[in-house]
Amino acid sequence: MSENTDIRSPIHPDSAIEKLSYQAMSANWFEYPIVVYPHQTDYGGIVWHGTYLTWMEEARVACLKSIGIDFADLVAMGCDLPVVDVSICYRRALKMGESAIVKTRTINMEGVRIVWEYEIQSVDQEITYLTGMVTLVAVDREKGKIMRQLPNTVKDALVKMWE
Amino acid sequence: MSENTDIRSPIHPDSAIEKLSYQAMSANWFEYPIVVYPHQTDYGGIVWHGTYLTWMEEARVACLKSIGIDFADLVAMGCDLPVVDVSICYRRALKMGESAIVKTRTINMEGVRIVWEYEIQSVDQEITYLTGMVTLVAVDREKGKIMRQLPNTVKDALVKMWE
Amino acid sequence: MSENTDIRSPIHPDSAIEKLSYQAMSANWFEYPIVVYPHQTDYGGIVWHGTYLTWMEEARVACLKSIGIDFADLVAMGCDLPVVDVSICYRRALKMGESAIVKTRTINMEGVRIVWEYEIQSVDQEITYLTGMVTLVAVDREKGKIMRQLPNTVKDALVKMWE
Amino acid sequence: MSENTDIRSPIHPDSAIEKLSYQAMSANWFEYPIVVYPHQTDYGGIVWHGTYLTWMEEARVACLKSIGIDFADLVAMGCDLPVVDVSICYRRALKMGESAIVKTRTINMEGVRIVWEYEIQSVDQEITYLTGMVTLVAVDREKGKIMRQLPNTVKDALVKMWE
Repeated sequence: MSENTDIRSPIHPDSAIEKLSYQAMSANWFEYPIVVYPHQTDYGGIVWHGTYLTWMEEARVACLKSIGIDFADLVAMGCDLPVVDVSICYRRALKMGESAIVKTRTINMEGVRIVWEYEIQSVDQEITYLTGMVTLVAVDREKGKIMRQLPNTVKDALVKMWE
Repeated sequence: MSENTDIRSPIHPDSAIEKLSYQAMSANWFEYPIVVYPHQTDYGGIVWHGTYLTWMEEARVACLKSIGIDFADLVAMGCDLPVVDVSICYRRALKMGESAIVKTRTINMEGVRIVWEYEIQSVDQEITYLTGMVTLVAVDREKGKIMRQLPNTVKDALVKMWE
Repeated sequence: MSENTDIRSPIHPDSAIEKLSYQAMSANWFEYPIVVYPHQTDYGGIVWHGTYLTWMEEARVACLKSIGIDFADLVAMGCDLPVVDVSICYRRALKMGESAIVKTRTINMEGVRIVWEYEIQSVDQEITYLTGMVTLVAVDREKGKIMRQLPNTVKDALVKMWE
Repeated sequence: MSENTDIRSPIHPDSAIEKLSYQAMSANWFEYPIVVYPHQTDYGGIVWHGTYLTWMEEARVACLKSIGIDFADLVAMGCDLPVVDVSICYRRALKMGESAIVKTRTINMEGVRIVWEYEIQSVDQEITYLTGMVTLVAVDREKGKIMRQLPNTVKDALVKMWE
């Protein structure tokens, strides 16, 4: 095992999915444009820190849609993808009226966990407002339990996104 | 009475409920204290106009609880109370850090429609920040239809509130 | 004065603005497309009633932009347009994943009050989810007082929208 | 010490503050009770993952108030405390109508960075819904720059909280 193996991303060496390296998909950002409206600001005239989670969710759902997965359909079929982990580093504040691009991509799938990476940047890519990671896990809505494996449609679509 | 009677504007003239006059309950405000936190403000340093709806909902649910109706239980039993009408007059803006009292009471029940009146005031009652009305209607969650009558537990509790 | 005069919309007959009739601008809807994301839903799987105010604000700000008024610039220049009145009639609930069009237009200007009308409809215009009105008033941010008149840029742009 | 010292990565080895160990304050949780209202839920009937940030902020501001720091006053005096880092692990979902306790405490102060730890637990402390960390940094609002040191009132109050 190479020194560079990310110890947080174990290890099903026979899985096509896990073999896909971060580098291989480095260009595969999905881009979701946003504009800051008044309801998204706080007393400082800048975006309230929790607002970014709404955009990150929107970008994720739009990204899934772009690869053929309708999130509402998925939920209706009994599979939910709740957030189990979030980490965000706020680098610079977006102000009312400003535009930006929410960039996202999946960087890891381990069983039923899907890790999404985020960067929110200015349209000209000069400024990075935020970097972050969000982890989802597939849950069987009826049983209220984590699924044993991702639905095939989801897995196949995500793998295709990386190719 | 025909089957097609619009159940949204019913008239059961013998109902004790409808006879209750506005005046009779004029003192019956339920009071729900609030404090303005940063996430509730906008670029102006004042509460964003939509935030008030969260407090109005909280006050309503807390009021129902105070008369023995647990809203989550009601929903679990198949009865929802969605908002069908809102009108709000914003008189003065609450600022970050300020305290206030959300006062609410039901002022009308017609069949399955329940009208709630609101006033948001300073703690000393000198300033009125907002006045408003919110109308709910009882819906059968399974059928997705307006109910023919309020569940008895709800009706009885609301009537008792007026006494 | 005719019997049909709307007593809520008084009448400065010498003003070009007030003479513009509702009918004259009936086609002048500004259309703002939306999609329902998870964070906008509530326990019922439908859009929470307060969420619509975020879309109504976004449509309003986007409409102003389309006629040359940048809302953030306006605020930076010292003029705010807070909401002083809202009335909404909820006719049908939008569900997660659904698309719709927020239609808005100004239907009245009286001094510094601007009244916006809203309809949220399905993309095919078959379903109306919501109708509503929102009234703004121009405020001098520094003085904290209602302005004597709208800034000319705002007034001119709104009048032009009606032509 | 050079002028260019990165004030985000501290260095006051003689400071009483930095010496305070995590253990010393392990009992010093500030507790902020919450109840889940409808507007805080999503289509799953559980709290939307971003909602927790509103409670975490409320608990933090209430905690500051309990030690004599009025956040609105602090901002009015020119010192803001924006969030620069968030990490949250969601362990179990709160449902509509449920009560819980948001527990928070500062676990580190390095120069102008203040790190808050969070646990959201059931009232009986049997269930942990969420654990997390939020880092604030003191900013001079007028200059728009990170401050060289925390205002004394803030520093003194936080130190006192640990004693």
